[in-house]
Amino acid sequence: MKRTKIKELFDAKEQYSEKEVTICGWVRNNRSQAQFGFINVNDGSYFESLQVVYDLNLKNFEEVSKFRVGVSLLVTGVIKLTPEMKQPLELHATKVEMLGDCPEEYPIQPKRHTREFLREVAHLRPRTNLFSAVFKIRSVAAYAIHTYFQSHGYVYVHTPLITCADCEGSDQMFKITTLNMKNLPLTKEKEVDFSKDLFGKQAYITGSGQLHGETFAMAFGDIYTFGPTFRTENSNTKTHANEFWMIEPEMAFCDLEGLMDIEEEMLKFVVKYVLDNCKKEIEFCDKFVENGLLDKLTKLTTSNFVRISHEECIEILKKANVKWEVQPEFGEDIAKEHEKYITEYFNGPVFIKDWPKDIKAYYMKLNPDNKTVAAVDLEVPLAGELMGGSQREENLDLLLKRMEELNIDKKEIEWYLDTRRYGGCVHSGFGLGFERLIMYITGVENIRDVIPFPRTPKKCDF
Amino acid sequence: MKRTKIKELFDAKEQYSEKEVTICGWVRNNRSQAQFGFINVNDGSYFESLQVVYDLNLKNFEEVSKFRVGVSLLVTGVIKLTPEMKQPLELHATKVEMLGDCPEEYPIQPKRHTREFLREVAHLRPRTNLFSAVFKIRSVAAYAIHTYFQSHGYVYVHTPLITCADCEGSDQMFKITTLNMKNLPLTKEKEVDFSKDLFGKQAYITGSGQLHGETFAMAFGDIYTFGPTFRTENSNTKTHANEFWMIEPEMAFCDLEGLMDIEEEMLKFVVKYVLDNCKKEIEFCDKFVENGLLDKLTKLTTSNFVRISHEECIEILKKANVKWEVQPEFGEDIAKEHEKYITEYFNGPVFIKDWPKDIKAYYMKLNPDNKTVAAVDLEVPLAGELMGGSQREENLDLLLKRMEELNIDKKEIEWYLDTRRYGGCVHSGFGLGFERLIMYITGVENIRDVIPFPRTPKKCDF
Repeated sequence: MKRTKIKELFDAKEQYSEKEVTICGWVRNNRSQAQFGFINVNDGSYFESLQVVYDLNLKNFEEVSKFRVGVSLLVTGVIKLTPEMKQPLELHATKVEMLGDCPEEYPIQPKRHTREFLREVAHLRPRTNLFSAVFKIRSVAAYAIHTYFQSHGYVYVHTPLITCADCEGSDQMFKITTLNMKNLPLTKEKEVDFSKDLFGKQAYITGSGQLHGETFAMAFGDIYTFGPTFRTENSNTKTHANEFWMIEPEMAFCDLEGLMDIEEEMLKFVVKYVLDNCKKEIEFCDKFVENGLLDKLTKLTTSNFVRISHEECIEILKKANVKWEVQPEFGEDIAKEHEKYITEYFNGPVFIKDWPKDIKAYYMKLNPDNKTVAAVDLEVPLAGELMGGSQREENLDLLLKRMEELNIDKKEIEWYLDTRRYGGCVHSGFGLGFERLIMYITGVENIRDVIPFPRTPKKCDF
Repeated sequence: MKRTKIKELFDAKEQYSEKEVTICGWVRNNRSQAQFGFINVNDGSYFESLQVVYDLNLKNFEEVSKFRVGVSLLVTGVIKLTPEMKQPLELHATKVEMLGDCPEEYPIQPKRHTREFLREVAHLRPRTNLFSAVFKIRSVAAYAIHTYFQSHGYVYVHTPLITCADCEGSDQMFKITTLNMKNLPLTKEKEVDFSKDLFGKQAYITGSGQLHGETFAMAFGDIYTFGPTFRTENSNTKTHANEFWMIEPEMAFCDLEGLMDIEEEMLKFVVKYVLDNCKKEIEFCDKFVENGLLDKLTKLTTSNFVRISHEECIEILKKANVKWEVQPEFGEDIAKEHEKYITEYFNGPVFIKDWPKDIKAYYMKLNPDNKTVAAVDLEVPLAGELMGGSQREENLDLLLKRMEELNIDKKEIEWYLDTRRYGGCVHSGFGLGFERLIMYITGVENIRDVIPFPRTPKKCDF
């Protein structure tokens, strides 16, 4: 038995017209009447379901007419094109066979479920239209990212997640152990004796692959990471999760302007790739999730991203005829309301660069003004900050000075400092939170709804 | 200043002949004489270095002739084709500028370093030929895997790494916590009070995404995972690491034969993709790592993979005129020496299927003989087991019976059992250890040499 995927039938419908095919899938809906009935079958290969038409010619008509939502089945029949109908084709069944039954109490019924409810059945929610769209887009966007970087010669680096260096600040990292936590071995000084742990010292799972990525950029020129990341933040908001995915590209011989060029080109490529390859899914999100989504995304792929300095940004904000909750200030970070205003002001994506050094990380390149660093955030309409990056401080002395000022222990990252000792060069990189990108592309507002099985404080089900 | 990547120069050399270009990169070698000199410059975009020719016309000739290995530099000059030489082109420098110096004690000198030494400088080893080849192949192979699955309509699923279900056996998983390990909160019963931990219960990082993957296969039909995986195994061998990457595809409406078709097609695709896109790197590995590698890989892409049962395999082993260290037995696992023999016997890859149920996992489909399960391992010449998969037990009662026999707590995975309750169907999946694949493709024998920053017992540097 050769089964044909439903996507194939939609994609090459003329070819299948009047042909016999066999499909497998799940019942999304079954509307039966006395003499005939319709089953919408979805096999996951295509966003839309295939309409199966059956009638009394089926020897198990009675049985089939009672097939419940969720049943898995096999259907053999003949494809009929129906250009006059809403759906372009139908399958006229000659055989319908149940593969797996589904009870009446099946939670995913063809009605509107709240997203909160669906989070409680995260293992079943990809069977709904919304999550079918979201997780398909997530998959296609991930591939688009790989395709962009690989086609530009970047090397994909799997940086380690387990680390023993706590330079990120160990409060923000999960501690990992193989020790028996009920009975931890102690040293003479009554400290936990991590020499007995698997790695012989305290270990963590990390929140960034940037430093490791930089070492590979000093060999391959252009590299990127794409992997899971962990934060211990005890924060229950729509945009925080304790496990999420990040992309961290790092480019040698690339300055801040070059960095912005790459960020802009990459984002446009990814959005265009999703628009081209997830038409039905984006249509659905445009209709049911964010009105104007398709328009927003299409515009992004052709717009020019404005580039302004942090100082210019603050000037614009100060001149604005707006009553701010947080007053914009030179030398300070900007708030959500400011991000929103500035993208509306320019009616498109805005790069804000040259940030006050005191609110940015130690590894960012100090500008000649000695007050700002060559860092850049990309703000996009309706979503705010999407990417953050910087030119890296390639001058070892300046880097060490900055680390000292910020009390960063250099002992743990001598290997990282080698990137500045052995043939260092101007280089830059950025970080893109993958979930934030998916929220932007789908219009979905809660990070819990773009992660297959989200992990948030007090929530680690499944 | 527009810099051209060295790969571009090699790829389109005719186009660049006699043109002026600027490159950036690192000195791999500098051989200077009284009147002229040669620098091999590598920028990471291409496996081979570009030969830069310089002479007394450079105003800083003296300085350039002393540039040490590892220095980063910028060179402007004219491309000359040199078809009669070993290298097809040269850059005749008109300007050579140091970007970043490199001291004499730079560990990566143009000589043979042991792999053991290079592991101690894992952050610098991608600057050597061997690791440049290995990590480029790793990157390209990862992309080939994504390309295979995406072009066949699979959905890439990011299954969670943090889990609170210890059904895998919590000894094999790292425990994670945000609690202060020096001062763990205790319950009245003197147990660790995990209700105070971030997730409100004991959490782990997981070793497999299969169960979560199955739930998505029941919606999307075909899915795959590709992410890091963790094992606490305290084992110091050439094939064990505590952090590695896995690919776990899962297909609905797919039986064991269909599974083997997919495994075979995928592996051939990935190997062919690497052969096509990493010619220089494979050439290098063929010459310096595994003699006959290119031949082995080329043969694989055109060979037919034999399919035999475990029973047939044991029969062949028993008949063999070999003095085994471990006697082959029906009902038992097979040893490394058996794997080796069987691939030599068939002179190619071999699928061994229908394994004794007692040595396989609970979720594997019980065969009608009640003694074996529909599991399959793929054995390949010189590397042994490369993939392991099975048809899954879709019958809920049989699955529950097997879980009971093996003492697996069903409470933690009720959600997983729903895949059998709500429209279950025949489905199959496999796991591919990514490092094992890279070892097979490169010929490198130690897993520590195919992971950028390997994590093994007592070793968690960088």
